[in-house]
Amino acid sequence: MTPDPFSAKVPDAGSAMVPVLAERWSPRGFDPSHVMDEPTLACLLEAAQWSPSASNSQPWRFLVTVRGTPEFDAVVRSLAGANQVWAPHASCLIVACRVMSDDRGGLLRWSAYDLGQAVACLTVQAESLGLSVHQMGGFSVEAIHEDFDLGASVEPLVVVAVGRFDPDADLPEDLRERESAPRDRRALSEIVVDGREALRS
Amino acid sequence: MTPDPFSAKVPDAGSAMVPVLAERWSPRGFDPSHVMDEPTLACLLEAAQWSPSASNSQPWRFLVTVRGTPEFDAVVRSLAGANQVWAPHASCLIVACRVMSDDRGGLLRWSAYDLGQAVACLTVQAESLGLSVHQMGGFSVEAIHEDFDLGASVEPLVVVAVGRFDPDADLPEDLRERESAPRDRRALSEIVVDGREALRS
Repeated sequence: MTPDPFSAKVPDAGSAMVPVLAERWSPRGFDPSHVMDEPTLACLLEAAQWSPSASNSQPWRFLVTVRGTPEFDAVVRSLAGANQVWAPHASCLIVACRVMSDDRGGLLRWSAYDLGQAVACLTVQAESLGLSVHQMGGFSVEAIHEDFDLGASVEPLVVVAVGRFDPDADLPEDLRERESAPRDRRALSEIVVDGREALRS
Repeated sequence: MTPDPFSAKVPDAGSAMVPVLAERWSPRGFDPSHVMDEPTLACLLEAAQWSPSASNSQPWRFLVTVRGTPEFDAVVRSLAGANQVWAPHASCLIVACRVMSDDRGGLLRWSAYDLGQAVACLTVQAESLGLSVHQMGGFSVEAIHEDFDLGASVEPLVVVAVGRFDPDADLPEDLRERESAPRDRRALSEIVVDGREALRS
């Protein structure tokens, strides 16, 4: 039996983590024949819509483009070079934007945090539908503002590629190696601060 | 049959949203007899640990306290008044912190965004284990820094209460009403920008 080249993506077989989180990773190999249909796209956006936010401020906007359209191509052109290699095969590119201030001009202090929550919910929904997500910080915010009419208080933070993972995708050698490389994270002991130990006496 | 007083919490019975997202909401009624055991707590933190982040920077720290300890009480004291009413019944309070800069002093531009993703993953894991989460922005960052040794580049952003929802929790009338109030969100049309329409010609 051939070992699964992507098995290194699952952190720990003994974990009690729910599969939709444990088996999630961010591929670059997307199937260019997969088409994002309207109900699926709506469901992904609903997952973001119902995410929690500070005082239910919902400080997010999602600029949505699907492959094969001028607006999708405009988002591709905004991407950093390496991302332009693989992202064009995603089924849709969603520019996740935060809203900096509310209707009365008040600063929305948790806007980036809340946008992150919303995209994480969208990702969970995508995974549960058998789709994959790869987020990119490498893009030109200026290019997005130049090409799209978003409004001044809307700041693009991340471009979210969604599509169907293709294990046989045609990728340059360096990107192909990263596809099957193990996922790694800091140990829990590095990111968890035990309140007992950190409490000043 | 008595109607479920919490049914208004589920956005739309016709939605294809996965239940762990559709049925999530942020209660204030927590069961003070529920104890957070170590394996469950570890699993919640693992879900955050394996969240995606910009260049895998993992710009997060989680200050963890469980009910019935001096460190839990210190976090409770940091909370804004209204939160002090209900949050003491949660099984644990986790102060979610972002790390502002990396080991070489470089600014971590997506730290708040990525922390939001990590807490959303923790929330999905909690929901899948039958637990509930209520996040609070209403707390004193200064009080947390005074009481806990966190380090200068670590900024507390949110206090995350996790516990078992108790529909019969003893809450003041105003908070009790909010428990069964419908969840509401802006329409998708308000938060989604159609790339076709927004593209400048």
